[in-house]
Amino acid sequence: MSRVRVHNFSVSLDGFGTGEGLSLQEPFGHAGERLHTWFFPTETFRAQTGERERRDVDPATAPDDAFASQWGRGIGVEIMGAGKYGPPGWQDDPDWRGWWGEEPPFHTPVIVLTHRPRDPLTLGETTFHFRDASPEDALAEARQLAGDLDVHIGGGPSMLRDYLAAGLVDHAHIAVVPILLGRGVRLWDGLEALEARYDVAAITTPSGTTHLTLERKRP
Amino acid sequence: MSRVRVHNFSVSLDGFGTGEGLSLQEPFGHAGERLHTWFFPTETFRAQTGERERRDVDPATAPDDAFASQWGRGIGVEIMGAGKYGPPGWQDDPDWRGWWGEEPPFHTPVIVLTHRPRDPLTLGETTFHFRDASPEDALAEARQLAGDLDVHIGGGPSMLRDYLAAGLVDHAHIAVVPILLGRGVRLWDGLEALEARYDVAAITTPSGTTHLTLERKRP
Repeated sequence: MSRVRVHNFSVSLDGFGTGEGLSLQEPFGHAGERLHTWFFPTETFRAQTGERERRDVDPATAPDDAFASQWGRGIGVEIMGAGKYGPPGWQDDPDWRGWWGEEPPFHTPVIVLTHRPRDPLTLGETTFHFRDASPEDALAEARQLAGDLDVHIGGGPSMLRDYLAAGLVDHAHIAVVPILLGRGVRLWDGLEALEARYDVAAITTPSGTTHLTLERKRP
Repeated sequence: MSRVRVHNFSVSLDGFGTGEGLSLQEPFGHAGERLHTWFFPTETFRAQTGERERRDVDPATAPDDAFASQWGRGIGVEIMGAGKYGPPGWQDDPDWRGWWGEEPPFHTPVIVLTHRPRDPLTLGETTFHFRDASPEDALAEARQLAGDLDVHIGGGPSMLRDYLAAGLVDHAHIAVVPILLGRGVRLWDGLEALEARYDVAAITTPSGTTHLTLERKRP
């Protein structure tokens, strides 16, 4: 059966997965780009945005890229929360087509969880399906769309927390960035003793990022 | 001038420095010993409790001990919160003499912050002074007691947070343990952007503990 995976989800040291004050101009609110500075210089991100052709990749980012590059491999569908698809209020804008331009980096079907579904939208190789569904129901549909491939849980923090709390995640890679955001949306709330259900490993890379992996224990 | 240092302060991944339900039987509440399992097998802790003579130290704990062993070196005084000195309500027990028996591991003066001061207590090489004082005033007295030596901020999480928020800490070693306590007292609250004032470094040891060091930036 396909696995449910999380990759490259960044949180601050105080556990915030996004900042406060999300908007079109500030997709991560007051966090700005600080949660993702480890990710941007990696070969994976450069290749995704085409920047790799313009600039060399710093070899010192290889340890971070070892994690970053696992995103996308074997993934057949993504489920994301409404807060990842657009800024607050995007549901009121029928022309909103996501942050990613005409060729989004997913290249698979994407289920967007929203209480206000709309018609599907195809951009390049990505088709967005909008669903008002429980984590379980969205996952059931995602598995069908994914075929033999895996399901990626894309965040933001609220929907990822829901999936973790519901015991639906097989593998999670969380990047802990040594900054204190102080406010925003916390990932870890309500997940007491989650570690009992996972084998947890951690390593800190030269960028100062601590990459946590949670692999669900075999029954 | 003497420096103000923090060593071996453990927090969970979700930022709790102690659990919920602290009592005489459970000094760390529902956290139990889980925040300190990295510390107990170290040579430093074994020597402190005399266990080193009874059992060999596991060489695999050397990376953790590299951090643990910095506690005590050059420390002339400790400041601790009321919650570290005893279980809730110890102020009502005139016979309470701390957790540490007749030879506490401090071997220096200790200032205990409490709204209900009592007479000083000397146990072995340690003298406890009880003060109802602000972080700044307690630190001023501590510096006098420490002479040329440094001041150790011993926690718990509330008083450590106060000292960090007041900008009074020069060096902090925080051990992040990969467990989710879910409840208790958080260390990081109200410390937004603390990293701007510190050089922050991190390393994960084989025990899975991520040792963070915060060194105050030179002006």
